[in-house]
Amino acid sequence: MRLKKFFNLRKIIWKGKILLLAYDQGIEHGPTDFNDKNVDPSYVIDIAAKGGFTGLVLQKGIAEKYYDKMKRLKVPLVLKLNGKTSLVKGDPVSRQLATIEEAVDLGAVAVGYTIYIGSFHEEEMLVDASRIQDEAHKKGLPLIVWVYPRGSGVKDIKKNDLMAYATRVALTIGADVVKIHPEGSMKGFGWAVKSAGKVRVICAGGSKISEKKFLKMVENYMKQGASGMAIGRNVWQDKDPEGLSEKIRDIVWK
Amino acid sequence: MRLKKFFNLRKIIWKGKILLLAYDQGIEHGPTDFNDKNVDPSYVIDIAAKGGFTGLVLQKGIAEKYYDKMKRLKVPLVLKLNGKTSLVKGDPVSRQLATIEEAVDLGAVAVGYTIYIGSFHEEEMLVDASRIQDEAHKKGLPLIVWVYPRGSGVKDIKKNDLMAYATRVALTIGADVVKIHPEGSMKGFGWAVKSAGKVRVICAGGSKISEKKFLKMVENYMKQGASGMAIGRNVWQDKDPEGLSEKIRDIVWK
Amino acid sequence: MRLKKFFNLRKIIWKGKILLLAYDQGIEHGPTDFNDKNVDPSYVIDIAAKGGFTGLVLQKGIAEKYYDKMKRLKVPLVLKLNGKTSLVKGDPVSRQLATIEEAVDLGAVAVGYTIYIGSFHEEEMLVDASRIQDEAHKKGLPLIVWVYPRGSGVKDIKKNDLMAYATRVALTIGADVVKIHPEGSMKGFGWAVKSAGKVRVICAGGSKISEKKFLKMVENYMKQGASGMAIGRNVWQDKDPEGLSEKIRDIVWK
Amino acid sequence: MRLKKFFNLRKIIWKGKILLLAYDQGIEHGPTDFNDKNVDPSYVIDIAAKGGFTGLVLQKGIAEKYYDKMKRLKVPLVLKLNGKTSLVKGDPVSRQLATIEEAVDLGAVAVGYTIYIGSFHEEEMLVDASRIQDEAHKKGLPLIVWVYPRGSGVKDIKKNDLMAYATRVALTIGADVVKIHPEGSMKGFGWAVKSAGKVRVICAGGSKISEKKFLKMVENYMKQGASGMAIGRNVWQDKDPEGLSEKIRDIVWK
Amino acid sequence: MRLKKFFNLRKIIWKGKILLLAYDQGIEHGPTDFNDKNVDPSYVIDIAAKGGFTGLVLQKGIAEKYYDKMKRLKVPLVLKLNGKTSLVKGDPVSRQLATIEEAVDLGAVAVGYTIYIGSFHEEEMLVDASRIQDEAHKKGLPLIVWVYPRGSGVKDIKKNDLMAYATRVALTIGADVVKIHPEGSMKGFGWAVKSAGKVRVICAGGSKISEKKFLKMVENYMKQGASGMAIGRNVWQDKDPEGLSEKIRDIVWK
Repeated sequence: MRLKKFFNLRKIIWKGKILLLAYDQGIEHGPTDFNDKNVDPSYVIDIAAKGGFTGLVLQKGIAEKYYDKMKRLKVPLVLKLNGKTSLVKGDPVSRQLATIEEAVDLGAVAVGYTIYIGSFHEEEMLVDASRIQDEAHKKGLPLIVWVYPRGSGVKDIKKNDLMAYATRVALTIGADVVKIHPEGSMKGFGWAVKSAGKVRVICAGGSKISEKKFLKMVENYMKQGASGMAIGRNVWQDKDPEGLSEKIRDIVWK
Repeated sequence: MRLKKFFNLRKIIWKGKILLLAYDQGIEHGPTDFNDKNVDPSYVIDIAAKGGFTGLVLQKGIAEKYYDKMKRLKVPLVLKLNGKTSLVKGDPVSRQLATIEEAVDLGAVAVGYTIYIGSFHEEEMLVDASRIQDEAHKKGLPLIVWVYPRGSGVKDIKKNDLMAYATRVALTIGADVVKIHPEGSMKGFGWAVKSAGKVRVICAGGSKISEKKFLKMVENYMKQGASGMAIGRNVWQDKDPEGLSEKIRDIVWK
Repeated sequence: MRLKKFFNLRKIIWKGKILLLAYDQGIEHGPTDFNDKNVDPSYVIDIAAKGGFTGLVLQKGIAEKYYDKMKRLKVPLVLKLNGKTSLVKGDPVSRQLATIEEAVDLGAVAVGYTIYIGSFHEEEMLVDASRIQDEAHKKGLPLIVWVYPRGSGVKDIKKNDLMAYATRVALTIGADVVKIHPEGSMKGFGWAVKSAGKVRVICAGGSKISEKKFLKMVENYMKQGASGMAIGRNVWQDKDPEGLSEKIRDIVWK
Repeated sequence: MRLKKFFNLRKIIWKGKILLLAYDQGIEHGPTDFNDKNVDPSYVIDIAAKGGFTGLVLQKGIAEKYYDKMKRLKVPLVLKLNGKTSLVKGDPVSRQLATIEEAVDLGAVAVGYTIYIGSFHEEEMLVDASRIQDEAHKKGLPLIVWVYPRGSGVKDIKKNDLMAYATRVALTIGADVVKIHPEGSMKGFGWAVKSAGKVRVICAGGSKISEKKFLKMVENYMKQGASGMAIGRNVWQDKDPEGLSEKIRDIVWK
Repeated sequence: MRLKKFFNLRKIIWKGKILLLAYDQGIEHGPTDFNDKNVDPSYVIDIAAKGGFTGLVLQKGIAEKYYDKMKRLKVPLVLKLNGKTSLVKGDPVSRQLATIEEAVDLGAVAVGYTIYIGSFHEEEMLVDASRIQDEAHKKGLPLIVWVYPRGSGVKDIKKNDLMAYATRVALTIGADVVKIHPEGSMKGFGWAVKSAGKVRVICAGGSKISEKKFLKMVENYMKQGASGMAIGRNVWQDKDPEGLSEKIRDIVWK
């Protein structure tokens, strides 16, 4: 029965909040995000462990090859199921590259899937994500959707409307958590949180900015109802990832 | 055998009439239709219960997350199986996002599916809807189709012809109820009802208009042979949804 | 074994001839073909019964909703498996909307499928029709193909060549009966019959014309080797369908 | 195990050579290739039997409808699995219309499949043919591929290069015999035979030419290493097909 | 469990290095790469055996037809699963032509698959490769991916960035070895090796160049962290393949 669906969400939630370390940029952006240190998954797995993140976002290749370290350090795995390179132009599409069965084998605590609403290929991702939602829930795995408005359909639409649309789509297809990249106003973000209903909203950290600015941003999101953050570059590109992680935790769990 | 097919239709019919509360706009239009109150599914579920609707139209995400309230208030669920955002331009396509198995698990009393006839992608929706019809009937679930003429194929076609075409397509593929958005004349609507044969025709309420105008419209549809209404914004955007629902019921079951 | 394949053809053949009443226009043309009487499937089922037709061509929706009447009057059902509206422009494609399993459940005596040769989407219909041929024969059901040359590929091709091509395609994919809409000369039609080999050729009646002209046309087709007719509008748009049917029978079984 | 794969090739080979009668033109070219005699499959089956051909190439429709005659005259059937009309313009695609299961049921001794390399749709045919190769070999059926360079990709490529490319593709995907339509030089044809490795190369006869010219052509191909011929129009359009067949046999088995 | 995944990699690795003889050019380039000697697979199988290669890259057709020789000489088979001709223009796509089941039947020690990142059809190849990775690992077969940046998406991207992107994609989807065609600087190649994480990087030999230049190139790649080479034309187009192979081995296993 459907009532068992939310049991495992607690595996990535601690005291009601979610703090993910995002490390799926290798295929999404290419290695240009990396330097000699953070190009190595081991380095980032260490940060996830020491930084107290409630989940580390990886695709299956890294999750498999660095499985032993993940286990040893007890880092909770969020398996990102779809992916694409940034090379291909035009309306984006990102398709399923790993199965729920593989997520289970790898001991994932949640699965992730990106939907580009407004893209000409939106339908394919809505179909995939909806099927995955059902499969994941049957295995007790929560679904985190990255919902990003992209492509020819989002021109001339207000950023606040897009944010709220993104979270509502997540609610509609039955995701448990939605990650968005807030681009409108803080008030607009609050409305997006409302539009999500019972779905938890977490925010992308985006590209590296100053610590002060970044922490302020996190604080603002949390005040407006965010359930947490999914941060990548701002942490593992930092010279003191552990120190920064502590400051972030202080805000998220304030 | 096929003879068992219509058993469950009575679950959404009361004294021969159907009155649905439509709340699938979150993905179809985005949250711009909502305000601080009706953005919350709980608010709308309450209206469905108190307003005496014979069914509430939801997609699977909301139906799952608000399952307990739906059960407690005994609101009959019409599970909308397909969906798309309004962002994507061009000839529309809306694909299946929830399965019949999920509808059964959620205790739905009927399933819904939208077909855009005249769209370049019409064929995909006809194929999906026809397969769903068979699957749904095997599980004792009636199929309600939303048939909307859209896309490059409907230019220069008379509105009355499109209305009748819509209901006839519903008859052809074996739907049990067809929801249309009447845009031609009242006489044309009567002809559309005739073209539907044994399929029941219900009408969309459309965007919010004055109560007087709205109730007159409902009355006219019912006089021309409609089997009921599927209303959303005119009810849950109203300041007194319960009161308005009562007035609607008085007309539908006159 | 394949030798059992033609057993059931006799169910739609009487003394070597086939006379079908076609009533699939609701989705193919829209209800514009209908008037207040013949818009009602019951009216047409009555004609099929009284007119002595060896089969009535319906899609699954009507076949299901009017199943009781079909059974009571013992009207042999030819289930049309694919369909599309006339709204969509460009090279036509018509896809499978009902299964062989459904045809069996409905007690069909044959199944029908339309192929638009020359259409850019020809391949999809050839693939579908070929698979259906195998499935249908395994269940003892003969396959009637409507083969219509349409789309960008048929420009500048002679009508006689198209007629013969249509019937030969039917032979090639293993259909048992081919319905064509003869558009070339009578001599060309004779050649099309020859090109069909052991496949029986029947002719479409087309849109309503004068009785005299129509009966003469039927006579000519039969003389050139047609195995019968599939007539719709000329019969059920007639003021005396029963009387006209009798005259047609006299010619077909002369 | 794979070692059983070549057992049945001997069913279409006699003393190391292959001589096929091709009669798949009905769908590939339309009936314009035919006259009053050879439009009838029975006529051509007789030629195959009396002419001593090691195989007759048919699609499933003719193979089924004329199954009894094929059996009685013990004509070995090569079932052509894919097909398309010549009406559709643009880069060609030809898709599977009959299954290996049907080939087995019909007692085929080999199956055939056409690949248009250089076509924009090449990939679909490579995928289909490769899958069919596996399925056919599992049932002990050899695969004959027709490999024809066609479409936008073959412009400005030398004919000799295309010939060799065609036979090498056949080797790469695991076909047992490749039929090509040689269009380059005789030396180029010899190179194409070498490029085929252990795959046997047979040549298309093409459209009707004078007997003298035709027999000379056959002789030249055989000298350059062809394993035989697949001839259609030059035989069954001839006024003395049996006599001509004898002359061809004399050359092939010289 | 996933921990068994890397067992068989040792079958193509010797003392930590990989040296493959590539012979998949027949379909990828056409036979224009070949001469009278190396057009014959037997000749190349001999080189693989005598030259001490840790694997010979073949498609299924050659692997099957020359199975006995491969077995007799104990040449380890790397089965290339996808392929396409070089004729088709536009953004490239290469699809799966052989299954993991076939690879197992043929006794392959690894499977290969080509991905064209940056191509408009990238998604199809990412999906296929990811599924194959899972299937292959379940059967104990390592996956070697050829990752080549191609098509409209790679214009204006720096060669060094493309190299690193290619190896990172291999890591992301879980390949065990990635073959690239290095086109940037040696420093860039080193970065690509780093970006690959635990995935081994091997280099394509490319078209025939002078021995001196070629060996220098191999040496440089090995110094920058390559795990080996996959060489074709430079070896089997050489007048002394055995001698050259020895020199290559001396560098790779220095």
